Amino acid sequence: MDLHILDHRLRVTSIAKNGLVNFTHPLIKLIFLRNRTRCKFFSLTETPENYTVVLDEEGFKELQPSEHLQVESSIWLPLNVVSNGNASSSSQAVGVTKIAKSVIAPLAQQHVSVFMLSTYQTDFILVKKDLSVVISTLEEEEFNIYKEVGGEFVPVHCQDVSNDFQKNGKEATQPTVHPVLIPKNQFCVMSLDPDTLPSIATTLIDVLFYSSSLKEDPSSSQDLDCIKFFSFSLIDGYISLVMDTEAQRLFPADLLFTSSSGELWRMVRIGGQPLGFDECGIVAQISHPLADSDISAYYISTFSFDHALVPEEDIVSVTDMLQHQRKEPATS
Amino acid sequence: MDLHILDHRLRVTSIAKNGLVNFTHPLIKLIFLRNRTRCKFFSLTETPENYTVVLDEEGFKELQPSEHLQVESSIWLPLNVVSNGNASSSSQAVGVTKIAKSVIAPLAQQHVSVFMLSTYQTDFILVKKDLSVVISTLEEEEFNIYKEVGGEFVPVHCQDVSNDFQKNGKEATQPTVHPVLIPKNQFCVMSLDPDTLPSIATTLIDVLFYSSSLKEDPSSSQDLDCIKFFSFSLIDGYISLVMDTEAQRLFPADLLFTSSSGELWRMVRIGGQPLGFDECGIVAQISHPLADSDISAYYISTFSFDHALVPEEDIVSVTDMLQHQRKEPATS
Repeated sequence: MDLHILDHRLRVTSIAKNGLVNFTHPLIKLIFLRNRTRCKFFSLTETPENYTVVLDEEGFKELQPSEHLQVESSIWLPLNVVSNGNASSSSQAVGVTKIAKSVIAPLAQQHVSVFMLSTYQTDFILVKKDLSVVISTLEEEEFNIYKEVGGEFVPVHCQDVSNDFQKNGKEATQPTVHPVLIPKNQFCVMSLDPDTLPSIATTLIDVLFYSSSLKEDPSSSQDLDCIKFFSFSLIDGYISLVMDTEAQRLFPADLLFTSSSGELWRMVRIGGQPLGFDECGIVAQISHPLADSDISAYYISTFSFDHALVPEEDIVSVTDMLQHQRKEPATS
Repeated sequence: MDLHILDHRLRVTSIAKNGLVNFTHPLIKLIFLRNRTRCKFFSLTETPENYTVVLDEEGFKELQPSEHLQVESSIWLPLNVVSNGNASSSSQAVGVTKIAKSVIAPLAQQHVSVFMLSTYQTDFILVKKDLSVVISTLEEEEFNIYKEVGGEFVPVHCQDVSNDFQKNGKEATQPTVHPVLIPKNQFCVMSLDPDTLPSIATTLIDVLFYSSSLKEDPSSSQDLDCIKFFSFSLIDGYISLVMDTEAQRLFPADLLFTSSSGELWRMVRIGGQPLGFDECGIVAQISHPLADSDISAYYISTFSFDHALVPEEDIVSVTDMLQHQRKEPATS
């Protein structure tokens, strides 16, 4: 398999719920007016806590500093696994499940924290800027690693990055087991031809900028059976949308498309308290057992919490698996 | 003819050019999300100086106080002349020309200052809240006057309004003759089915919120051959757009419609210095000679200046007329 280190330098930011009005102007530009921006990587996810915005430095320039804007201090680089046709995989699973054992588990073991961003098209693994551990770790997993330089993919090797790299030989310490929340709403993962984006502009603007009650108390929404979760991304010209079935009904049915099976997804939100950006192994903890059971999963990290989406029909076994994990911490 | 006093209580406001970003959220709501607002009268006009927003009190609530927002202190009421089929008119002219002698001139003579807002559909004559002079003056012009009360039009008479009204018998003093500017761009006055508004949303958003260079020096644009002028209104469910031919090219040709003759209009901007809201007779000074020559005219007041639009083919004679007016002040 090939691993691509994409040529985007990303910032991970959070806009407070009550501060969104101040960011309507730059966000609408980044979402709808591609001719007016050089931003190529943009993702906006609404959760009950805040709006997580992940975007490249061109996009980040559009966001004015504000008391309502929190910016994670690192530059993050997106990795992308590309099946080059040689790898034989018996798995039908999609999403992070496919890369759980080859990428996520090894990185977790090497204490590399990741920020995951699954989209309709692919799964981006965001890592902090220092790539030496990442490259040496994944080279051992038999990946061919390429770095995007000016639109071309150039092979890279561990020694190209850092000669004095010392591989961390010790096993990862036992990770924290975070509480999970399994809301009742069903989600769809969809895409849209970018040329038809104008057709859904007013609906998308309505949903993104006007549907939240600003008086909503974020702490009270923790108890809700249904979670507010809506994600839009426009990355290298591809659009991906994650929304629940209630939001989906607001859009014209003929423009948004999902995979042929049209599956519905249930969410597992990970984290009782905001997870921060340094802990490693959070994604691995969920994706590893899913991979063992060959259960597909999208995985979307946000500023405060992580979110896995698993097929509706698998939610019972996933719930059992998570309960088991929480009752009996693994001993090896 | 019938005169309707419409049931809208209007505010006339101005948003500074560099403050528009702070008002993107409420303005997009007022323009595109009719289900989210009870505002029924909304008009936004961009000029080189600022954005003039005229809106009813429901809409006004959406605008947060800001150093970038100027609010004229009065409540304005819109009047509307409705031809009831009895009036025989030999004139083919449209716009303020039709009401120049019956409404605009008599109100000017009675020192009533007006704020004009021509749209594709009709011409609104905004007057400040005290209606007694307006009603007594226009009753003398043989108007049947109706006031909109809860959607119904109820006849009103002078004595219903104010018993102690003293008609101002003296002639209006000689009005100030303001300098005019005649930019070279050609304008269209258009409409749009409100149901197709979503189809042009991204284009309209681009033009309204992203096309101005914020670094533009308003004072320098006075010298420009072409003026920045774009007006959108959504009043009682009807949309009207005024834009120059350069902006028109950005929109799909099949959605916006204009009158069958498809005429182009040239602009006369009135005022060398901002006109304020107290002076009367400004509209009359332009519309009276246009009526004499049976030349159609739309008329759009903004926070700083007034703007008359006359047919392209009449601009030479209008220019001559205005030059004459400025060289030889009328003596009667």
